[in-house]
Amino acid sequence: MFSALDHQMMARALRLAEQGLYTTTPNPRVGCVIVKDGQIVGEGAHLKAGEPHAEVHALRQAGNLAQGADAYVTLEPCSHHGRTPPCADALIKAGVKRVVAAMQDPNPQVAGSGLQRLQAQGIAVQSGLLEAQARSLNAGFISRMTRRRPFVRSKIAASLDGATALQNGISQWITGPEARKDVQHWRAQSCVMLTGIGTVLADDPQLSVRDEAGELQGRQPLRVIVDSHLQISPQARILQGGNALIVYGSASADRIAALCQHGVELMHLPDHQSRVSLDSLLELLASRGINEVMVEAGATLNGALLHGGLIDQLILYYAPKLLGADARGMFGLPMLQSMAARIDLDITDMRQIGRDIRLLATPHSPQP
Amino acid sequence: MFSALDHQMMARALRLAEQGLYTTTPNPRVGCVIVKDGQIVGEGAHLKAGEPHAEVHALRQAGNLAQGADAYVTLEPCSHHGRTPPCADALIKAGVKRVVAAMQDPNPQVAGSGLQRLQAQGIAVQSGLLEAQARSLNAGFISRMTRRRPFVRSKIAASLDGATALQNGISQWITGPEARKDVQHWRAQSCVMLTGIGTVLADDPQLSVRDEAGELQGRQPLRVIVDSHLQISPQARILQGGNALIVYGSASADRIAALCQHGVELMHLPDHQSRVSLDSLLELLASRGINEVMVEAGATLNGALLHGGLIDQLILYYAPKLLGADARGMFGLPMLQSMAARIDLDITDMRQIGRDIRLLATPHSPQP
Repeated sequence: MFSALDHQMMARALRLAEQGLYTTTPNPRVGCVIVKDGQIVGEGAHLKAGEPHAEVHALRQAGNLAQGADAYVTLEPCSHHGRTPPCADALIKAGVKRVVAAMQDPNPQVAGSGLQRLQAQGIAVQSGLLEAQARSLNAGFISRMTRRRPFVRSKIAASLDGATALQNGISQWITGPEARKDVQHWRAQSCVMLTGIGTVLADDPQLSVRDEAGELQGRQPLRVIVDSHLQISPQARILQGGNALIVYGSASADRIAALCQHGVELMHLPDHQSRVSLDSLLELLASRGINEVMVEAGATLNGALLHGGLIDQLILYYAPKLLGADARGMFGLPMLQSMAARIDLDITDMRQIGRDIRLLATPHSPQP
Repeated sequence: MFSALDHQMMARALRLAEQGLYTTTPNPRVGCVIVKDGQIVGEGAHLKAGEPHAEVHALRQAGNLAQGADAYVTLEPCSHHGRTPPCADALIKAGVKRVVAAMQDPNPQVAGSGLQRLQAQGIAVQSGLLEAQARSLNAGFISRMTRRRPFVRSKIAASLDGATALQNGISQWITGPEARKDVQHWRAQSCVMLTGIGTVLADDPQLSVRDEAGELQGRQPLRVIVDSHLQISPQARILQGGNALIVYGSASADRIAALCQHGVELMHLPDHQSRVSLDSLLELLASRGINEVMVEAGATLNGALLHGGLIDQLILYYAPKLLGADARGMFGLPMLQSMAARIDLDITDMRQIGRDIRLLATPHSPQP
């Protein structure tokens, strides 16, 4: 169905799409390549919401050569008027003869309508080329469109015996500088950094992107703290410089007032036990256009998210160290009575980063 | 110093030596290749204590062609009369012109004397070719000769959050069938399987070699149980079929008598707190000609061995599962107060085995 040239050009379009890794949110990352007689005549990527889409950049570059050309796009061209005019119309106007999309628009209400609009004009359309790669690039956008919640990644740094900190709370540093640098890339592509009050009290982290080499384009995710009973201090480093949101379940008027006086944004999201409802939190974040959430937290929040089936990807760094069974664990889960109650993972990537090992893994949903 | 042919021939000799992986104990695994004019004219491996050494097999095969040939041996040829005559003399008699050894005899009292004997007869001698590989193949023999204790490997199967069993003790099965089969190879090359009373009470294991494909040559290691207060039942599966040794620190005469009546071998090896002295145990095993010990135990024995600096290699299988922070850990260590007190590891191998991950790692000695 697809030729070697098709694969090559879509792979190129995906590489272009990656240019927007740190910048397109809340929009998806999209790349486009225009090919005439086997030669690339135009290419482009979407870089920032409100700026031109990938197709527009590529068509501008191609000019008249777009006439009768093939267009490869990593996402179905839009057919609606958003902040920019529909790309489907631009492709029609330019006279392309064929459009290949890696995937359809994930929004179930519009999926396929952009391709239909092209087809109705006699343009050959195909979809599904390198679809897995295209989905992976926009896992957050797809999650928000289809599940109305963000894609949630949790990064955990542990010793090889599964400890994230000593019993006294000391955790700096388990992993080496290379792993800690790798973490910055994941942070920079996230819309939100999510942590819990336990981590704030123990480590007083900033959870900002440190970008000494200037590669990460200055993005600073919103920092969200799950703090069921508002124990956080207004002096916590994570609250400095704004760009932070505290969600709580129950708190005294005094605590609320003290934090509001410091200009901190608070959100009341109780569950039936007056803790923060994590489901409601993720819905709220999606409603604000948040595609990707990165969790850096301790066993309590990670355990609650995992048990709730809310972690989509684990980024696990293991340092070649042993800390002993008394040290702090990775996931606080309800005590298991049988091996069948375990949570299974699919390991999707394994590599060495400096002296540490990094695994990417996808949790299966917990057994009901 | 060494040519490409030298490397090739020594690599071949090492492969031959591996034929004795499961059978040569208490002797080392040794391979030998005789090369004349770039052609292999004889080769052999030592297979079993009391049977001919590798050099003898290779010289027999070479016959008169050994005259003026090069001999490659993975260990310095012996110069003493043991159960067989000295191989150095056999090489001299055969008229080889050069002997290349991968390593010297690890016994400090004889190291180099075999090579000197050859050299005194005008034979060119060299040592140190592929030495690291040769050492790795006989880590147990070398340890017994140089440290008067066996090489100790501990195998641990854990979840990715470092749990070896649920809190209720259930551990079957964390890893998959491929990993459990891989374990059999390690068991079969060990002289002793070492475990603790906790594991015996929880799992009632046999710790025997299961060799369905018949690849492991029927070896069944001696099973040693660390049972400080003789809590084991005479009906424990690990005691069936003999070939077991219980070491204890203190016990009532009744307990001792009950086990002796069942024909079980007992050994009293107390430390100053009436627990088993692990140092004494390893010395005792070395004095019995034990080269390699494999530990399959819980956090208590593994923690005590690790803390004592007595584990030389870790074989860590990680299953893609999560069991939660309440589950049982890998190493019971004294509680760490600072990150500096951690135990560091060098990871020497990382691979997937079935759906699991296997790491080989070498612990650094604990900080004093």
